[in-house]
Amino acid sequence: MPVIRVEMFKRTQEQKRNLARELTAAFVNTCGGNKEAIKILITEVDKNDWASGGVITADKKDII
Amino acid sequence: MPVIRVEMFKRTQEQKRNLARELTAAFVNTCGGNKEAIKILITEVDKNDWASGGVITADKKDII
Amino acid sequence: MPVIRVEMFKRTQEQKRNLARELTAAFVNTCGGNKEAIKILITEVDKNDWASGGVITADKKDII
Amino acid sequence: MPVIRVEMFKRTQEQKRNLARELTAAFVNTCGGNKEAIKILITEVDKNDWASGGVITADKKDII
Amino acid sequence: MPVIRVEMFKRTQEQKRNLARELTAAFVNTCGGNKEAIKILITEVDKNDWASGGVITADKKDII
Amino acid sequence: MPVIRVEMFKRTQEQKRNLARELTAAFVNTCGGNKEAIKILITEVDKNDWASGGVITADKKDII
Repeated sequence: MPVIRVEMFKRTQEQKRNLARELTAAFVNTCGGNKEAIKILITEVDKNDWASGGVITADKKDII
Repeated sequence: MPVIRVEMFKRTQEQKRNLARELTAAFVNTCGGNKEAIKILITEVDKNDWASGGVITADKKDII
Repeated sequence: MPVIRVEMFKRTQEQKRNLARELTAAFVNTCGGNKEAIKILITEVDKNDWASGGVITADKKDII
Repeated sequence: MPVIRVEMFKRTQEQKRNLARELTAAFVNTCGGNKEAIKILITEVDKNDWASGGVITADKKDII
Repeated sequence: MPVIRVEMFKRTQEQKRNLARELTAAFVNTCGGNKEAIKILITEVDKNDWASGGVITADKKDII
Repeated sequence: MPVIRVEMFKRTQEQKRNLARELTAAFVNTCGGNKEAIKILITEVDKNDWASGGVITADKKDII
């Protein structure tokens, strides 16, 4: 505890490495606690599996 | 917000496309809100990773 | 299976009742399967616990 | 209901089979309820997607 | 890692205590690993927030 | 997208406000993307609902 879960589109391993480090630092800086106890789980989501406004992202012309 | 997550066995892309559209419509029709704000995340689950009654689905004779 | 989870701001019980019925219908209509097997879990989220753009919703002037 | 979700590193199918059976038994023994109603969802997590102490597991010398 | 999440209807604290102990034992017995690393998160769900077959549990005559 | 979920023990509203701001900044700094698209959901967990090593946190002498 705490557990931080991130659902995002595909990123590089270097980005995930940096993300884990910086999210952990952000948590300790604002909420305190033991850095080692902070767990992070990253889930990369395919653009065929995420929709907004009723439309699958992969079907949109402009993918954000 | 809202976020709707669906965990289900494998479906075709066309089924996922229709599902995203219809779940979004169902939400707006019953709870109101801005259609664009509705996010849907689909997770397809392997039959080796889902169990009921203590038995993995892939091990069952009759898979529903 | 499937499991549909909805995270949304507070709604009335009547809205939740209608939502459960209509999400279930939307699933059966687009993906098939046994209506009885469809499980829905609703989580109502406090506006102090949801943020976008780095700002907690309860702190925003315009809450959507 | 209930739904039990397990996030863990990769295991063999035999381990997952045993896990589903034993988690279900543990639930019935301590909380009662209908065995058939107990659903289990297993998610195997890649060591590149899990971090503790701000460090991705795959980057650690000692992986637990 | 691993993280085990349980979503269930309300139980007593004694049931939750026993559940945490037995789920942990079930995991170690079938998948191995360090007992201390096993995290369990229990979420008690209101019968107004869970539906099957399109009907909220609190609205059903027979609640399982 | 992305969605960041944080499960943690109870914090003050000021801590949650700071946490949302800093997690969002950490994401943008390491993974890029549109700040406004970053959604954060905070879930505060009771010490009766979280266990490690098979023991509910509220039952432990030393709560971390």
